[in-house]
Amino acid sequence: MSTKRIAGAEIEKLIQLLAKVPGLGPRSARRAALHLIKKKDQLLTPLASAMADAAEKVQICSVCANVDTQNPCSICTDPRRDSTTIIVVEDVADLWALERAAEMSVRYHILGGTLSPLDGVGPDDLNIKTLVDRIVGGEVKELILAVNATVEGQTTAHYITSQLEDLDVKITRLAHGVPVGGELDYLDEGTLSAALRSRTIF
Amino acid sequence: MSTKRIAGAEIEKLIQLLAKVPGLGPRSARRAALHLIKKKDQLLTPLASAMADAAEKVQICSVCANVDTQNPCSICTDPRRDSTTIIVVEDVADLWALERAAEMSVRYHILGGTLSPLDGVGPDDLNIKTLVDRIVGGEVKELILAVNATVEGQTTAHYITSQLEDLDVKITRLAHGVPVGGELDYLDEGTLSAALRSRTIF
Repeated sequence: MSTKRIAGAEIEKLIQLLAKVPGLGPRSARRAALHLIKKKDQLLTPLASAMADAAEKVQICSVCANVDTQNPCSICTDPRRDSTTIIVVEDVADLWALERAAEMSVRYHILGGTLSPLDGVGPDDLNIKTLVDRIVGGEVKELILAVNATVEGQTTAHYITSQLEDLDVKITRLAHGVPVGGELDYLDEGTLSAALRSRTIF
Repeated sequence: MSTKRIAGAEIEKLIQLLAKVPGLGPRSARRAALHLIKKKDQLLTPLASAMADAAEKVQICSVCANVDTQNPCSICTDPRRDSTTIIVVEDVADLWALERAAEMSVRYHILGGTLSPLDGVGPDDLNIKTLVDRIVGGEVKELILAVNATVEGQTTAHYITSQLEDLDVKITRLAHGVPVGGELDYLDEGTLSAALRSRTIF
């Protein structure tokens, strides 16, 4: 039996593009498309304009490489933030995660990935030069390396440290330990060792 | 610490709306938004126009209640389809699922739900009157009730049957049995009983 057209080309196109959104696959894209169509006025139309708006206005911050609708971004231009501390992250998603923790009101720097020679990602592919320039500026007192606790993340952290050797800046990293709410039984040995080594007075 | 603005209002709005798409939650909406922003030209902009297009062109078929960009829909107007058989489904998603099976090239009728007195869904809230009208027209020889095998689905099927008692139309339902690829061990007793009762010669 030949493939038959069961819905308009516009609907097929919508499903096809939705399937490329992370979190949605071909099957859930179909379900999502149907839901959007049924909620045309409440969801489909507003989402279409929200996307068009975002596409039109999104910019990459020339200071820290954050995504925002202004350049420099709202974080870089917020006068209430402490500009003597910069948290270095791999990705904007990490910045968002740290902001949700709402522990520190400081600035950020987004590397845009990690060093990965096998994938051909070298220092020039990351925003490391702009980071060094920010430190050379002299205002920054502390750099918190909040890269992932992976081999690539740690390699990148070491490379950044080596680039800043001669500069007067304190370089720190996130503590390793037991996640809050975590059960010891399910943790790997590396985490448990680190948690034991960095134990604190109760 | 007060909530700080970490991304433009347009980005926040996009995340908020994406979180309402089935399959995405608040956390995955954020991840999806970031991915869309990063793939602005390949994904965000095309998806925005696909949504706007769909919102503008989608219509509900006045014959069968299918969603399409034309009315009557492509299925109702396809001359190659057998118009003497109608498959009755609860939802457009069921029509799409049956079309993927590509077993029969026939017409459909979408009820738009099932009878559910507790939720206040009565016969007038479903597309039952239009179904009866199609049968009264006389062309239809067989009606396949492809409603879900739930209490509500079966109640709806019985109600439809009662409405068509005096009309000359064969009413059938989908077979119950072991799903293809299914393991007996994981099946419920009802399905196994039905599969035994409807056993066929090997």
